[in-house]
Amino acid sequence: MEEIIRLTKDLIRFKSMHSKPDEIRACAEFIEHMLSVWGISYTRLDRGSFPSILALPETRYAPVLLMSHIDVVDAPDDLFLPLEQEGKLYGRGSIDDKYAVALSLVLLKEHFQRHRKQGRNQEALSFGVLITGDEELGGHQGAREALKTMKTDFCIALDGGHLRKIVQKEKGIVRLRLISRGKSAHGARPWLGENAIEKLIEDYLKMKSHFQETRPEHWNRTLNFSIVHAGKSANQVPDYAEALFDIRYTENDDMDEVVRKIRAEIQGELAVEAKEPLFWGVDSPYLKLLLEVAAGTEVGFEHGASDARFLMEHGTAGIVWGADGDLSQHSSEEHVNIQSVYALYGILDEFLKRVEEKRV
Amino acid sequence: MEEIIRLTKDLIRFKSMHSKPDEIRACAEFIEHMLSVWGISYTRLDRGSFPSILALPETRYAPVLLMSHIDVVDAPDDLFLPLEQEGKLYGRGSIDDKYAVALSLVLLKEHFQRHRKQGRNQEALSFGVLITGDEELGGHQGAREALKTMKTDFCIALDGGHLRKIVQKEKGIVRLRLISRGKSAHGARPWLGENAIEKLIEDYLKMKSHFQETRPEHWNRTLNFSIVHAGKSANQVPDYAEALFDIRYTENDDMDEVVRKIRAEIQGELAVEAKEPLFWGVDSPYLKLLLEVAAGTEVGFEHGASDARFLMEHGTAGIVWGADGDLSQHSSEEHVNIQSVYALYGILDEFLKRVEEKRV
Repeated sequence: MEEIIRLTKDLIRFKSMHSKPDEIRACAEFIEHMLSVWGISYTRLDRGSFPSILALPETRYAPVLLMSHIDVVDAPDDLFLPLEQEGKLYGRGSIDDKYAVALSLVLLKEHFQRHRKQGRNQEALSFGVLITGDEELGGHQGAREALKTMKTDFCIALDGGHLRKIVQKEKGIVRLRLISRGKSAHGARPWLGENAIEKLIEDYLKMKSHFQETRPEHWNRTLNFSIVHAGKSANQVPDYAEALFDIRYTENDDMDEVVRKIRAEIQGELAVEAKEPLFWGVDSPYLKLLLEVAAGTEVGFEHGASDARFLMEHGTAGIVWGADGDLSQHSSEEHVNIQSVYALYGILDEFLKRVEEKRV
Repeated sequence: MEEIIRLTKDLIRFKSMHSKPDEIRACAEFIEHMLSVWGISYTRLDRGSFPSILALPETRYAPVLLMSHIDVVDAPDDLFLPLEQEGKLYGRGSIDDKYAVALSLVLLKEHFQRHRKQGRNQEALSFGVLITGDEELGGHQGAREALKTMKTDFCIALDGGHLRKIVQKEKGIVRLRLISRGKSAHGARPWLGENAIEKLIEDYLKMKSHFQETRPEHWNRTLNFSIVHAGKSANQVPDYAEALFDIRYTENDDMDEVVRKIRAEIQGELAVEAKEPLFWGVDSPYLKLLLEVAAGTEVGFEHGASDARFLMEHGTAGIVWGADGDLSQHSSEEHVNIQSVYALYGILDEFLKRVEEKRV
């Protein structure tokens, strides 16, 4: 199983950030090369310059699908040098999501080789692997499109949760842009103008009243004041202010209604910049089987959003799950706990063998 | 007197903005050339690339000093084409402050030529003229330095008020920079971070409580929220926010004390970026004489600040006064009412003759 960690290190060395699209493609080609050497058939999909790799037992179907991604968020050069220390593997992408790519590939190779030894071919596999290149940008060209080309009964997005927590629901996202307009005037005579920043703050305080105070243990919608820009000159009353907000909502929230109510209360213009559905897993006998194998693991929720939300469009059952990374993704201390990778591998290996034996 | 308007138009054609320092210098040279042609002695001072022109009856003294400036705030090209319409002269600098430059120069020429006809030289003048090139940047290289090189009993800054209102006090300026620091986190888990924008808003609301609501008729300190910038990415809790505030204060305000109190209440760092003294005119028999000549004109205050504040450093008496511009300075509709320029000229002409006759 150490092969998984070695391979994860190889993958971390690719600076596969969206600021370096060539590195994302080079990383995809590296994986393609491996699959070819192993003799595994796969499909490469390219949409909008983002590569996806799909290896399935049949052309368009897999009972179980393991999903992961090679793209990572920006980081300085030194984070692309993998570093193993005290049972942890540090580096950009270590937990998000290159260990998962490596784990899926090694699982695929091991199962494939076992079948071949026993005279069976790729069709005997109980699972397929999907590796995408745009999860950090929203997954619209990767997971969303790839899922349209195939069918699966149960998708495991290896991109969240942790060894003891399978995620069956994730919040949705709404991005709002608030524009406040005022009237310019000389800074010495503020009463002759209308200060757009003041108006924006008033509007924000009204928006905020539609959100409860957030605590670590909760399941309600949250509001983050992400960006604000206003004003040109120190001695002028600003006539324009602009802000961006990031909302995460749950299945209990009617966001259209919330936005409508906010709009009715504020003075500024509120535009919905983006809306992403929440992920709300469908019940599945596969999950029941997985929980039997993964003793001590529970089902829960997560505040973030992942590519799993695209499963909703097809009514496909699925979960988000993964190794332990102590919530370090996107940080400069990003790491994955190596033992948890091995444990996860063992559970998935056993689970996929039982699927093969039609124990579902 | 139409010469004043003709000359004002000539001056408006110079795009003497600080983004075009060459135009400020060309405008100064145009004035120097005129003074030379008229036979009037003057001194040109250059400090930090800003030209000032000083024409005095004696080398370092004038009973009265008329002060104005040739620099203007930024404007598009078409505002530098003077336009006369319905008794108003439109264009950048028309009221702020090129009509005043033209008026001072024509007054100087007329008095000088009258003296010469009567066999007297420049020393017989009852007044001098100071024209500077950095008022819009604060006047530190122009008026402040030029005033150090000479003495006057009464300075008239032709750069504010209006025909019926002589300004004897102007507010001071304090510019404050507020920096709020928080803790970054993923936008889906705002409770793991501290939002710097939220902290800045909290601090601002505390700052604001130190200021009364501003109304047109008042004489108290005001606060303008001029500029704010914060946040890098939509899905991140911002860890840094920065804002700039413009405060105008009166002689009743101890600004050091106000800043100290605010600092004690807020979480962020509050830096004093700039502090400009207020202008608080010293009583003077010249003002008494001027009010006798200018029947119907009253003494009042103004919310803005001008180069007159440098008089405070020498205990020199002075006022801020000018033609009627309907508060259009710095706007795209900037204009001066032509009749008010003629009326102002008439009053100053008479006043300066009476000063000459030692009626003060």
